[in-house]
Amino acid sequence: MNYPNNIEKNYKKPLSYKNRGMDLEEELNLTNDYYIEINKALIYKKPTPIGVAKVSYSKKGKVIDRAFFKEPSTLDYNGLYRGKYIEFEAKVTEHKTSFPLANIHEHQIYHLKKVIEHQGIAFLIIKINGLVYLLLGEDFIDYLEKKDRKSIEYEYIKEKGYLIPYGFRPLLDYLKIVDIIYFKEDA
Amino acid sequence: MNYPNNIEKNYKKPLSYKNRGMDLEEELNLTNDYYIEINKALIYKKPTPIGVAKVSYSKKGKVIDRAFFKEPSTLDYNGLYRGKYIEFEAKVTEHKTSFPLANIHEHQIYHLKKVIEHQGIAFLIIKINGLVYLLLGEDFIDYLEKKDRKSIEYEYIKEKGYLIPYGFRPLLDYLKIVDIIYFKEDA
Repeated sequence: MNYPNNIEKNYKKPLSYKNRGMDLEEELNLTNDYYIEINKALIYKKPTPIGVAKVSYSKKGKVIDRAFFKEPSTLDYNGLYRGKYIEFEAKVTEHKTSFPLANIHEHQIYHLKKVIEHQGIAFLIIKINGLVYLLLGEDFIDYLEKKDRKSIEYEYIKEKGYLIPYGFRPLLDYLKIVDIIYFKEDA
Repeated sequence: MNYPNNIEKNYKKPLSYKNRGMDLEEELNLTNDYYIEINKALIYKKPTPIGVAKVSYSKKGKVIDRAFFKEPSTLDYNGLYRGKYIEFEAKVTEHKTSFPLANIHEHQIYHLKKVIEHQGIAFLIIKINGLVYLLLGEDFIDYLEKKDRKSIEYEYIKEKGYLIPYGFRPLLDYLKIVDIIYFKEDA
């Protein structure tokens, strides 16, 4: 990984895995904003699905006075990269030896399988022990089918996952790994 | 278009363009649900983006007490079909001779161009005079660049767009048109 030598002065202190001020979602949003800025990919976090129960109207327009969060049935992020469909879920765990699967809903797992079946690229981005890994949907499903456990062992994530090093811009260059895996010929 | 001969009795009366009981969004949601059911495509309406201003906690979990709708910067629907990324916007107009472009935000037009540039499939689904048309993103952009108008003439939509006939299941088989345009070899 390349840390640039000339980090801009007005930028926050260089980010490392010890930086707990920014959560994984913010880190990925910054990364995706950067990909859009340099016209590399179009990947967005989907809005959280909500059910609106009550609205009213103010001078500024429609206001939601009561709503609730719905359970997502797809993964958090999706988009388009080099003509391919990409969808992934990002999760942080404070556990040290395993990633608890209670974090991911049953229908999200079902959906992930479907994305693979329809020739999309699907993966998880997991932050564990302060390190960020990309675990391919195929390896995730494989684990579930063989192990049927309530969590994924950290050892498995280290073995099968790809470490995404923290960089400057982009902050978490996960598409570099997508290039290596899916676009081998010109990675 | 094929209307099946054996329409189930407990189904609502056969849908036609005169059926105003269901709006275009519901019609497309039913269509997409059906595509998922028969494992043809994974296409979803994105949740409307909202900004949450105030939350509280009840027995049932987190409740939103105040929020507002945000302007979308992407298109309403996206997903995966035959390995390709698809994104589209669906709009109804009550105008008879043209489709007003005030309906579509500037950054949505920018985004649509980007989707095409990144080799995705992008289009509009426009309901005008009770008829539903698929207008390719390319033809939409072409019109904007040549005409620079505040609306698209109905004549142009009829000429360049593809009529999506109402069917039974799926209700609005727009992927049939995607097949013809993008997968010619085996449509």
